[in-house]
Amino acid sequence: MRHSGGVSTADLLLALDLLGTFAFALNGAFTAVRAVRLDIVGVLALGIVTAIGGGLVRDVLIGAVPPAAFQCWPYLAVSTAGALIAFFVARPSRLLLRPIIVLDAVGLAFFCVAGAQKSLEYGLAPAAAIILGVITAVGGGTIRDMLIGRVPSILTNDLYAIPALAGATIAVVVAPAEILAVPTAVIAAAVCFVIRMVGVKYKVNAPIPPRLLREDGSDG
Amino acid sequence: MRHSGGVSTADLLLALDLLGTFAFALNGAFTAVRAVRLDIVGVLALGIVTAIGGGLVRDVLIGAVPPAAFQCWPYLAVSTAGALIAFFVARPSRLLLRPIIVLDAVGLAFFCVAGAQKSLEYGLAPAAAIILGVITAVGGGTIRDMLIGRVPSILTNDLYAIPALAGATIAVVVAPAEILAVPTAVIAAAVCFVIRMVGVKYKVNAPIPPRLLREDGSDG
Amino acid sequence: MRHSGGVSTADLLLALDLLGTFAFALNGAFTAVRAVRLDIVGVLALGIVTAIGGGLVRDVLIGAVPPAAFQCWPYLAVSTAGALIAFFVARPSRLLLRPIIVLDAVGLAFFCVAGAQKSLEYGLAPAAAIILGVITAVGGGTIRDMLIGRVPSILTNDLYAIPALAGATIAVVVAPAEILAVPTAVIAAAVCFVIRMVGVKYKVNAPIPPRLLREDGSDG
Repeated sequence: MRHSGGVSTADLLLALDLLGTFAFALNGAFTAVRAVRLDIVGVLALGIVTAIGGGLVRDVLIGAVPPAAFQCWPYLAVSTAGALIAFFVARPSRLLLRPIIVLDAVGLAFFCVAGAQKSLEYGLAPAAAIILGVITAVGGGTIRDMLIGRVPSILTNDLYAIPALAGATIAVVVAPAEILAVPTAVIAAAVCFVIRMVGVKYKVNAPIPPRLLREDGSDG
Repeated sequence: MRHSGGVSTADLLLALDLLGTFAFALNGAFTAVRAVRLDIVGVLALGIVTAIGGGLVRDVLIGAVPPAAFQCWPYLAVSTAGALIAFFVARPSRLLLRPIIVLDAVGLAFFCVAGAQKSLEYGLAPAAAIILGVITAVGGGTIRDMLIGRVPSILTNDLYAIPALAGATIAVVVAPAEILAVPTAVIAAAVCFVIRMVGVKYKVNAPIPPRLLREDGSDG
Repeated sequence: MRHSGGVSTADLLLALDLLGTFAFALNGAFTAVRAVRLDIVGVLALGIVTAIGGGLVRDVLIGAVPPAAFQCWPYLAVSTAGALIAFFVARPSRLLLRPIIVLDAVGLAFFCVAGAQKSLEYGLAPAAAIILGVITAVGGGTIRDMLIGRVPSILTNDLYAIPALAGATIAVVVAPAEILAVPTAVIAAAVCFVIRMVGVKYKVNAPIPPRLLREDGSDG
């Protein structure tokens, strides 16, 4: 990642979005292929939806239409490329599983920060910008899971939305009044990335309702 | 409910929205917890989605972005509060079941009227404003059901959309050309509330296709 | 179909949209009734969603809000009519199956072209306009399938999105710089229609991931 003085915030946001877009399309299409028997339309559509879906929802909600993913061709190009790779590979070898998880965490970290910062730029209040940062990061995967008939894993047990919440919160709270500084973005993304990777390594799940915990699976 | 002369329509609409928002978040999160094993992210997300989802869809469709729920912090605050209560309680005691149904009907009544009136204010035609009122009232629960993998009950047998349709229709048809009067809102909401409660008490369902009725479950 | 010199592009686009809207509502509601036991709210909602859902998503994404379907009453009227017919008929006789498939293909052909052309008019880039044309054509059916808990057939094996992609691509690529000519629309729609009907007749499916093909159903 470049963070020399010559890189503007706009450059950084674009780089964040494109790298995250590719990683999400690849991982999203792999996940979809594993879950449901899809044709090429399904693999491409679900890869692209995973990659740009969260940003589309964010842009529609903040009034930034047409959305960035439709105005700037590299988004569609890199997400199509990621989904096409998944179509031809279908099942990643075990050697690739770890890099894909890491790359996906990079995408998560970049998306939550970029989404929160763009929302601030469009005049959203801090609480809304944090939520929109999380939506940017997890929205595409959620739409993919709805399309393939799965309850989105972010709702049930994954430590996936919480790191995004942490990253978006830091990006919003630390952001100076006028300048969305590059260092803030880097720190916020790093915190999200680390929490996510710790969650993956130690299989940490988000807490479940305390009363259900006590009942431990019994159904009243 | 205040309906003294000193309360503007804007005040009334805000009060309608906030009360409905809390009721929907509470009931929506309870419904989600009963249906699927969720973690805290899931309970909060589904409670908030149930509460503000219909209004988000309405605001996006009428061009009122950023949506009211993201511009006015009390919406997020009361919906988060309702969902948090559901997270810690998990299963409401039997004593609470009736109050929750009543509160939810209050939310339904307020949402369909507020949604229709806001759509009229944004220049939508009457037929569209009625539909948008119904979407405001039932949209959040529909999105929640899609997320937890259930066919939304409003599509299959509940008398839930029809009272909302009645309330929104009265709000739109009776609305004077220029002034969205408070009495109209109160009457429209009351009609919706009464139909909903009658439906709950006598277990009235919406009609099903006549031919399926005759076949009575046989599948051709 | 009229294509005399006196018909403006706007007239043609309206005619395309209305005919497609009726066909989609009818077919969409029939499909929903076959899949799930619905009440009148469900049949109407799913018919209307199938008919106008793709256009709503397109209009929200290109910033054309309120969407055309809410500003021009014939859209809601014809989609309600189509869904009501499906409610009272419930199961079309075998004699009607072929006309319904043909009518649906007509709708598919008209929607992908109208959607792509409207997106161009709103200043979208060619690649985005093509995708938005496809979304216009297949978006409503996809939302319906999500609502009734099915994995959308366009993602798994139907040759449904690919003809829409062909039609939208021709409409975008052949469109002269300034004038969206009627002949282009007719040719693009005809290509989409023919591909779709050939796919139906010869049961052509879209290709599936090559590696899954070799494994032929075994699950690693």
